[in-house]
Amino acid sequence: MSEAKAGSRPGERERVPRGWLKIVGLGPGSEAMVTPEASGVLEQATDVVGYVPYVERVTPRPGLTRHGSDNREEIRRAEQALEMATEGRRVAVVSSGDPGVFAMGAAVFEALEAGRPEWRSLDIQVLPGVSAMLAASARLGAPLGHDFCCLNLSDNLKPWALIEKRLRLAAEADFAMAFYNPRSRSRPEGFARALTVLREACGNARPIMFARAVSTPEERLRVTTLGEATPEMVDMRTLVMVGSSLTRCIPGARREWVYTPRSAS
Amino acid sequence: MSEAKAGSRPGERERVPRGWLKIVGLGPGSEAMVTPEASGVLEQATDVVGYVPYVERVTPRPGLTRHGSDNREEIRRAEQALEMATEGRRVAVVSSGDPGVFAMGAAVFEALEAGRPEWRSLDIQVLPGVSAMLAASARLGAPLGHDFCCLNLSDNLKPWALIEKRLRLAAEADFAMAFYNPRSRSRPEGFARALTVLREACGNARPIMFARAVSTPEERLRVTTLGEATPEMVDMRTLVMVGSSLTRCIPGARREWVYTPRSAS
Repeated sequence: MSEAKAGSRPGERERVPRGWLKIVGLGPGSEAMVTPEASGVLEQATDVVGYVPYVERVTPRPGLTRHGSDNREEIRRAEQALEMATEGRRVAVVSSGDPGVFAMGAAVFEALEAGRPEWRSLDIQVLPGVSAMLAASARLGAPLGHDFCCLNLSDNLKPWALIEKRLRLAAEADFAMAFYNPRSRSRPEGFARALTVLREACGNARPIMFARAVSTPEERLRVTTLGEATPEMVDMRTLVMVGSSLTRCIPGARREWVYTPRSAS
Repeated sequence: MSEAKAGSRPGERERVPRGWLKIVGLGPGSEAMVTPEASGVLEQATDVVGYVPYVERVTPRPGLTRHGSDNREEIRRAEQALEMATEGRRVAVVSSGDPGVFAMGAAVFEALEAGRPEWRSLDIQVLPGVSAMLAASARLGAPLGHDFCCLNLSDNLKPWALIEKRLRLAAEADFAMAFYNPRSRSRPEGFARALTVLREACGNARPIMFARAVSTPEERLRVTTLGEATPEMVDMRTLVMVGSSLTRCIPGARREWVYTPRSAS
């Protein structure tokens, strides 16, 4: 590190501070699922940038400034982070889960591509995390044990027609499916429409799983069928999964497991 | 824990040993990506079961038996693990990456469903890990930053016609795509056929990425186009990703980044 430390002694050769930007996945919520490399970066950062509840997962300490911002501020937040790194600061942009899955990864690269040329010389790194999808799948068994797809059900950034088209093609491909953002405040009817499409394409008996706030004290799991599912079963913290035609439920003495077999022959 | 410890004092009430089975994701390779909960389980296990190279990632210690087995032995391995847990042992079944993505998770639940009724009373838990797909995506930027699918290209357990159908539907849905097992020893021609289908469906200019052995000393990354890609660019340790129609490459001073924007409107 060629950092010019705040406490460097006079007479020590002044060096240009070298900033960096790390895009860090914090995992789904539990500290026990934060990777050591993510924890290490958070210990070295001078600035943490992200959506307020994620920034608050980073323990405050002297020398660390936490910049929490609102949802839907992703591009402005990414620009702020890139600018601070250019100024020589060590900036961690934090996302829940994995930063590459409907999180800050794409937003930072969008800002990088559209932004100041200097930004392209920055030391940038993406640190993966355990995504909500993988954590939810683990809690339920192995529902994504065969080919699957992962969709963002929010129509903030794409037309509803595209979501519906993708749902129908995913059903035709017989993928297991994972859905992020099933219910947004602004469009509460979206998930009801998705359920209608899925019932038409997959039938009422197909398993659907709701995994809310996995690995936090608010965790709640529910396994039901498309026929029994209702829009009230999801909120903004729910990860939804729908089985393929081969997905199976195993009733057990302790609990029910859901898995998709490896074989489709 | 109601373990009957090996070193328990005479006179202490003998209790029935309570075994467990934990299906553990070791992440893509680097120790820095193993979650603390996975490390904790490996410290408590009496037995580690898995494919030889993954079992060898667990440091030997007194009191731990490592049971390495060959590839394609998944069901026999799962049965062995379930049986040992029934006998009171603390068994970790290890997978590289995440156990729910083309790994031991589904195999254990297949064995559980088909096996002895006693197994259903076992204490079973799945511990997620950073999958190869997420680690590869992080190294390259954010190529899975929008809706995506994940396919196993091996035709050991499904007919090739189904793989081809899924590739065509995934292209029609305009998903970014991640592929596991692009090239198997027994069917080296499979990936060449996949490339032909993808070129037809997505065009020669579409970005394709090869990420080999991410986070290990053998890591190698390559970004090219479907038109330039050849089957020799993959081996059994390569994770392949294909962009959606919106995926972009950013040339930078240090390196090239690949990302798929969040917006499709």
